Amino acid sequence: MDEHSMRMLLEEVAAGRVTVEDAALRLRMEPFEDIGFAKVDHHRGIRQGVPEVIFGATKTPEQIAAIAERILAGGDGSVIITRMSPEAADEVSGRLPLRYDAVSRVGIAGKPTEERVGKVTVITAGTSDIPVAEEAAVTAEALGNNVVRIYDAGVSGLHRLLSHSEDVMTSRAIVAVAGMEGALASVVGGMASCPVIAVPTSVGYGASFGGVAALLAMLNSCASGVSVVNIDNGFGAGYIASLVNRSSSRAR
Amino acid sequence: MDEHSMRMLLEEVAAGRVTVEDAALRLRMEPFEDIGFAKVDHHRGIRQGVPEVIFGATKTPEQIAAIAERILAGGDGSVIITRMSPEAADEVSGRLPLRYDAVSRVGIAGKPTEERVGKVTVITAGTSDIPVAEEAAVTAEALGNNVVRIYDAGVSGLHRLLSHSEDVMTSRAIVAVAGMEGALASVVGGMASCPVIAVPTSVGYGASFGGVAALLAMLNSCASGVSVVNIDNGFGAGYIASLVNRSSSRAR
Amino acid sequence: MDEHSMRMLLEEVAAGRVTVEDAALRLRMEPFEDIGFAKVDHHRGIRQGVPEVIFGATKTPEQIAAIAERILAGGDGSVIITRMSPEAADEVSGRLPLRYDAVSRVGIAGKPTEERVGKVTVITAGTSDIPVAEEAAVTAEALGNNVVRIYDAGVSGLHRLLSHSEDVMTSRAIVAVAGMEGALASVVGGMASCPVIAVPTSVGYGASFGGVAALLAMLNSCASGVSVVNIDNGFGAGYIASLVNRSSSRAR
Amino acid sequence: MDEHSMRMLLEEVAAGRVTVEDAALRLRMEPFEDIGFAKVDHHRGIRQGVPEVIFGATKTPEQIAAIAERILAGGDGSVIITRMSPEAADEVSGRLPLRYDAVSRVGIAGKPTEERVGKVTVITAGTSDIPVAEEAAVTAEALGNNVVRIYDAGVSGLHRLLSHSEDVMTSRAIVAVAGMEGALASVVGGMASCPVIAVPTSVGYGASFGGVAALLAMLNSCASGVSVVNIDNGFGAGYIASLVNRSSSRAR
Amino acid sequence: MDEHSMRMLLEEVAAGRVTVEDAALRLRMEPFEDIGFAKVDHHRGIRQGVPEVIFGATKTPEQIAAIAERILAGGDGSVIITRMSPEAADEVSGRLPLRYDAVSRVGIAGKPTEERVGKVTVITAGTSDIPVAEEAAVTAEALGNNVVRIYDAGVSGLHRLLSHSEDVMTSRAIVAVAGMEGALASVVGGMASCPVIAVPTSVGYGASFGGVAALLAMLNSCASGVSVVNIDNGFGAGYIASLVNRSSSRAR
Amino acid sequence: MDEHSMRMLLEEVAAGRVTVEDAALRLRMEPFEDIGFAKVDHHRGIRQGVPEVIFGATKTPEQIAAIAERILAGGDGSVIITRMSPEAADEVSGRLPLRYDAVSRVGIAGKPTEERVGKVTVITAGTSDIPVAEEAAVTAEALGNNVVRIYDAGVSGLHRLLSHSEDVMTSRAIVAVAGMEGALASVVGGMASCPVIAVPTSVGYGASFGGVAALLAMLNSCASGVSVVNIDNGFGAGYIASLVNRSSSRAR
Amino acid sequence: MDEHSMRMLLEEVAAGRVTVEDAALRLRMEPFEDIGFAKVDHHRGIRQGVPEVIFGATKTPEQIAAIAERILAGGDGSVIITRMSPEAADEVSGRLPLRYDAVSRVGIAGKPTEERVGKVTVITAGTSDIPVAEEAAVTAEALGNNVVRIYDAGVSGLHRLLSHSEDVMTSRAIVAVAGMEGALASVVGGMASCPVIAVPTSVGYGASFGGVAALLAMLNSCASGVSVVNIDNGFGAGYIASLVNRSSSRAR
Amino acid sequence: MDEHSMRMLLEEVAAGRVTVEDAALRLRMEPFEDIGFAKVDHHRGIRQGVPEVIFGATKTPEQIAAIAERILAGGDGSVIITRMSPEAADEVSGRLPLRYDAVSRVGIAGKPTEERVGKVTVITAGTSDIPVAEEAAVTAEALGNNVVRIYDAGVSGLHRLLSHSEDVMTSRAIVAVAGMEGALASVVGGMASCPVIAVPTSVGYGASFGGVAALLAMLNSCASGVSVVNIDNGFGAGYIASLVNRSSSRAR
Repeated sequence: MDEHSMRMLLEEVAAGRVTVEDAALRLRMEPFEDIGFAKVDHHRGIRQGVPEVIFGATKTPEQIAAIAERILAGGDGSVIITRMSPEAADEVSGRLPLRYDAVSRVGIAGKPTEERVGKVTVITAGTSDIPVAEEAAVTAEALGNNVVRIYDAGVSGLHRLLSHSEDVMTSRAIVAVAGMEGALASVVGGMASCPVIAVPTSVGYGASFGGVAALLAMLNSCASGVSVVNIDNGFGAGYIASLVNRSSSRAR
Repeated sequence: MDEHSMRMLLEEVAAGRVTVEDAALRLRMEPFEDIGFAKVDHHRGIRQGVPEVIFGATKTPEQIAAIAERILAGGDGSVIITRMSPEAADEVSGRLPLRYDAVSRVGIAGKPTEERVGKVTVITAGTSDIPVAEEAAVTAEALGNNVVRIYDAGVSGLHRLLSHSEDVMTSRAIVAVAGMEGALASVVGGMASCPVIAVPTSVGYGASFGGVAALLAMLNSCASGVSVVNIDNGFGAGYIASLVNRSSSRAR
Repeated sequence: MDEHSMRMLLEEVAAGRVTVEDAALRLRMEPFEDIGFAKVDHHRGIRQGVPEVIFGATKTPEQIAAIAERILAGGDGSVIITRMSPEAADEVSGRLPLRYDAVSRVGIAGKPTEERVGKVTVITAGTSDIPVAEEAAVTAEALGNNVVRIYDAGVSGLHRLLSHSEDVMTSRAIVAVAGMEGALASVVGGMASCPVIAVPTSVGYGASFGGVAALLAMLNSCASGVSVVNIDNGFGAGYIASLVNRSSSRAR
Repeated sequence: MDEHSMRMLLEEVAAGRVTVEDAALRLRMEPFEDIGFAKVDHHRGIRQGVPEVIFGATKTPEQIAAIAERILAGGDGSVIITRMSPEAADEVSGRLPLRYDAVSRVGIAGKPTEERVGKVTVITAGTSDIPVAEEAAVTAEALGNNVVRIYDAGVSGLHRLLSHSEDVMTSRAIVAVAGMEGALASVVGGMASCPVIAVPTSVGYGASFGGVAALLAMLNSCASGVSVVNIDNGFGAGYIASLVNRSSSRAR
Repeated sequence: MDEHSMRMLLEEVAAGRVTVEDAALRLRMEPFEDIGFAKVDHHRGIRQGVPEVIFGATKTPEQIAAIAERILAGGDGSVIITRMSPEAADEVSGRLPLRYDAVSRVGIAGKPTEERVGKVTVITAGTSDIPVAEEAAVTAEALGNNVVRIYDAGVSGLHRLLSHSEDVMTSRAIVAVAGMEGALASVVGGMASCPVIAVPTSVGYGASFGGVAALLAMLNSCASGVSVVNIDNGFGAGYIASLVNRSSSRAR
Repeated sequence: MDEHSMRMLLEEVAAGRVTVEDAALRLRMEPFEDIGFAKVDHHRGIRQGVPEVIFGATKTPEQIAAIAERILAGGDGSVIITRMSPEAADEVSGRLPLRYDAVSRVGIAGKPTEERVGKVTVITAGTSDIPVAEEAAVTAEALGNNVVRIYDAGVSGLHRLLSHSEDVMTSRAIVAVAGMEGALASVVGGMASCPVIAVPTSVGYGASFGGVAALLAMLNSCASGVSVVNIDNGFGAGYIASLVNRSSSRAR
Repeated sequence: MDEHSMRMLLEEVAAGRVTVEDAALRLRMEPFEDIGFAKVDHHRGIRQGVPEVIFGATKTPEQIAAIAERILAGGDGSVIITRMSPEAADEVSGRLPLRYDAVSRVGIAGKPTEERVGKVTVITAGTSDIPVAEEAAVTAEALGNNVVRIYDAGVSGLHRLLSHSEDVMTSRAIVAVAGMEGALASVVGGMASCPVIAVPTSVGYGASFGGVAALLAMLNSCASGVSVVNIDNGFGAGYIASLVNRSSSRAR
Repeated sequence: MDEHSMRMLLEEVAAGRVTVEDAALRLRMEPFEDIGFAKVDHHRGIRQGVPEVIFGATKTPEQIAAIAERILAGGDGSVIITRMSPEAADEVSGRLPLRYDAVSRVGIAGKPTEERVGKVTVITAGTSDIPVAEEAAVTAEALGNNVVRIYDAGVSGLHRLLSHSEDVMTSRAIVAVAGMEGALASVVGGMASCPVIAVPTSVGYGASFGGVAALLAMLNSCASGVSVVNIDNGFGAGYIASLVNRSSSRAR
């Protein structure tokens, strides 16, 4: 049960349309359910107001399918699965409705939201950064945000980024995705007036050290509104961008 | 350069009034000027509502005072000065109205805003993290946010943090400040439903490596809404928290 | 010959039930035996009071089988083999009685102890940490300890851990296993009153640097009773937990 | 929140005496309060037998004195203060009874325990490691343990350590303190049958990197019973050694 | 359109041989063209005066071929493709004229320049450094430079390098390629009077850390004219050497 | 004797205006002169065609003065002294004509060249980078180059850099000086058509690690013409820029 | 260039038979040729008694075979090939007499020396270190040294090493090979009175960082006679041990 | 413990004159005492010919003086004190005959040996490396070796080193001392036929990381006879050079 459903239930109680008895029944789930190898956190939806997320990279297809089933059975409308292999996608889609994106390796099981609010912009420095960017973009869409994509706009050809300055300047949250020297975050951060979530990627070689060069650059950004997530963590950036965008979009 | 200007330039070349050398240079510079510069500069003008910020650590008292004077003369109501030594505070306060906070080493020159909207919560793990936390808190206040402080609530005594869970759960942005192992960010991130900006501090010794242990912990946080700024960067965290909180508070 | 057997032999001598001659014969082993590629340390059982252990990762199945045979021939009841491949398990089980666990990759050759004393609790942050945790748990069981397992209780969903606080607070030794940001150790360390042996795991990606982030976090733990072993060293943690638990359980 | 409380809350909502907003917040906070807080806080009360500890390094003399006074006023018999400067010692001893040790920089305010049980042995590789070793030794004594000191017994002169093998083999917990290459931990770990808590020190120069070389060596120890604490963390090692020794000594 | 073509066009305009109308048409391309996954930067040739370059390592054979076609269609005479797999070479050569070098993995699509000016010398320490050196050499040749190769002239056999001192002393730019300890750059830098571009390679093992040892050595070179590019970045070094050599060779 | 003087002497010999006898006398210096604590390299001027340079940081004022005297006595017109303390400047100026610049801490002893050719542009990201930039600029001037300075043009305020694009595009060599995230090098490298020598500075805090973040960013620059020198090595960058600019300016 | 040659060169210039350009180049190259090259080359001839060595890891079987043939054709009695794959061994043994050792992966082509002088002892901590140790041992034998092997004598079972103290104390050079914590070097260094060459190995996992832990430990050894070579560099250690042993054995 | 002693122990147990507890302890300690201790201690006596060494850096002047007095009282002719402050020198020289060298900070207390055998050559790259080099040289002299010094012979001016090739080629041991890029070791290693002990120094700035760049370069040296000691460890290098030189010089 996510926060939205809970509030709606309470409204019904307040309005006298649902009895205390029925409401108690529906609220009386354990905050988590232990399914042997994992604890499904049913309270998380209430606590944080968003669908459950499964980090698929270290789980077997069977484990992913089992957890997803349990979550959806708990009443959530959908569950996001990241770092999901095509094999896992096959397994899950045999048991549950699944929308799977092969570039970002993100799957949405259940019934995805159709809502799209505000404006989250996802920008990459190069073409190789696109899979990470798509993880952010698909995540943000699954969480109900409008997403604009600006790809291959690295700072060594500044006009490519400048030609999109309109989008940069009107976003409510921006995800800046770059490997190598990660300079994109600072340039975007200097142009934008909304929070910029920087995602260093492991794209590069030699002294990029698997994304460390970009990570350090982003942490040291001379632009004030830039915060950083882990290397290649497109999901985290999309999630945070959604928190920011939806919060600022709610009342408009 | 629009079609018209380009044709005019070529006419000049054809007429021998502009040399090939000069024309080539203007054509090389074209995409920067045409697409970007004007917009960037224009946008900058629009953003003037946010106070300017001076990073005081690497400037002399005289330089700080001079820059602050110039900014205020430009019409800004106030200017935030971070990492400001008491000596610099003396110098500036001799020339301009200044409110100086010795713990955070932040000064506000000019006429600070009285506005306070929404709710930003600043949490520290230990008492030694307070100066960095205050940099965040004072910054956020100077930018017009209500700030709640929860200090010395490290995770090795969980009851200290849990007793503040109401504030954690009703904030619109949280700044989590911790040195040593930086676990605070993950615990807070798991409780909150708003963005958490984590600030690693250089508090610790030995294998804390001046804040690296906390930085890495925060980047690897298992909680989804956590992003990270540079070690000891209280200002940056306060600034981002303000962007998030004010954006979500605007229309309510 | 382990310490227990030696003491029993000496008791017999003291009681006059075994002659000096016979005792001398049984004690007259070399402190170690050189079998070409390895020196089997027959004295270790006497010195440290526990079964021999073979680190299987860097040995061929044949080498493992040969060393295990030699140790059991030396009179030890059982030998623990860690990081043992299924192939090595096949090889050894063709020559010796073997109990093999595929998750932890630990094998016990010979006749395992049936004794179970005290209470060692093994906790993991996520499901991906389970193989390392099982290495600790199976080791501790093989050394004669009662083991309680609490898995997938990471700090971003604190209630999952809190619901087990009874076990945490009544253990005589705890093994806390976590990758990513390793915050589990600090939270458990703050709740427990017994020694906590923290095991960083290589679970994670990007700035987890193969377990370094968790390792540093654990070394910097703000909780006082936490000590740390090498990344993924489940065996070491189980071994130390056994030393602590058995020592404190002996006389009760 | 048990079934009863939840029903009562819903009744209040139905009756319009509690708003939906407030009810939603209470349901979000529920698992933390219900499961954890009370137990954690209760358990903390039970543990009051162990003296409180103040980490003095980052506090002013006044802060230390004030905290110590408050703790003793709370009924604890004594409080341990680590990394205490002589200045802080002066300040505190002007206000409270204090036993201060200048080598370890540890102070005991209040009435120290006279109890001494079991046997903790503290060993150093060199003379420069003594201050860290004394922090461990004085801590362990303040917590009621018998402490044996073996100093300057580094492995490049093996006879120095071997001449103390009886103490090594009869301890219930050993603290091994070494900088430079940290080999002491492995050699002691191979001789002892009790847990060895290894403390890397920042003693050394060049490629010792402030204790990193010793830290890594100790984490990679080939001896099984060795766990590690932070660089120069004598207090932590003494504390853990006390947990181990006292637990195993209780019933004898 | 590269700078040379643009200048020629302007000369024609100035001379009245091309009308303003026709020139405007040819200049009226967008500075870049968006082909979905990548933005082809047509303005780069004008801005920097050299052929486009495709970094092949992270692109599929199809992507490489598509981008190359688009660039050549834009009027450039040739395009350099680095880190190109044999598979990509097959794909491209089925669609475009391609000259492919299997050692350096560099391909030149289109009609390579025949021009060769000045003198760029490429030196390696060992035979294993040759692929990186060839990337530099083939790049420099594709950009119109005479290239001298001196391979396997590491400093532990100084006579090998000294026997080539005439070439070292008469070059206009030198590329020094070395792994392991990277000492070559300092020795060459001390002999030469032209800029030395040092390329650390990942050749080595153990404490070479994939080229870090050589990188640090080169950054700390005691010879004044040495600058450094990324590990294994033969292309970058050849490109810079070309900029230097061609600039100094232009007017002679 | 530098290369220029030597060539002039040989011209005189060729022209019969100087006898072989006289020329031999002037050429008959040792390639170096041993003055006890240092070997003055009289051949360097001939080999590399530039004035001698003394790295002042690790030498006493007396040593600097002695070496400078010896070099000037060898016939060189001037000697550059870098990292020179005011004390050393006092000492030297008491014995030799000296022009000393307190910001860059560079001194020129003897008779500085008046020549100024071509165009070297030195750009900084922030004001704190200016001392390093001045070391580059003063060095380049001392070596006979025209120098343009563009300071405080960091990428978070792109308009500051774009307003100087003409200088960027018409330089023959550019020195890009930046600390923190070092993004300046990539942006400048994308705009310029000449070699860019990037100088990371130690400006920054926390995860800038004394310039490492900027260093890595610059090594990973996505712009092709960028090479890198050691952290804070303004002299080296100015020296290389001079080699490039003078070589390309010679014949025009 | 002596006075006479220089005068002759000047005469040629004066006579117009040598251009100023050529004369300037010869004068620039002069100190290298005059002082160094000849001597270095001459000395190299003298050293021909030591067999040549081929580092096989980065060469194809064909390259190895070709180089080995060439060396033997040059008159050397044998050539040592390290890091040689079985495939390369096959290739070479089809063309030349070859003695190949599969454990150390060292091959000796040609006619190996039968000489064996002095005493080099090679010690390992564990069985996994044996391949590196054998590289040292086989190398030392190929260079004419008596070699004693002591394997699996790690310091956690000290009696295994102590039982060989006679060999340790009578060696003329010792190679100590250890991964993990590398403590062996210090213990052996404290027992021996000859030089100890320490070889860190990449044996280990987690915080051994591929041999870095052992490397640092060995560099920080508290024993005075220990020097260190690269991780896994058995060849280098065997070579140095041979230099030491043969030099000290020569005249006895 | 031989058979006889063991039987006697058992007789005592049988007779009730020794408890089981005590017997068990003696059997646990047995391999250490029996095999090792006596021999180690005996051997130490034999080695008394080499002077004792005191590492002065971490000791007070009083401690140094006291230890030196005790050693000399034990019969040693002299004692070497390294890293000795002038204050400590004052203190010691007031109590004992002392020869103190202020550059290397080495003192020799007692009656230094007059013997000088063989030839140890100490070479530095720059003048700043001299203090470390002198520590090696003075140590080697104090241990009875002839020492040749070649200072400021860095590889960027190769002729300075080449002019000393005679000394390089006739030494029995060479100490190569260099900071920055540490290339000296490889060049010297390629010229010499004796062992080269490389000492990285902390001379440098920026990416020299306090000597790490030189350390890594030396560990990766492409010359075969090079081994390495800790950063700035002149003493260790001088000590090892003495072991090598004296051993090879003994019988000639």
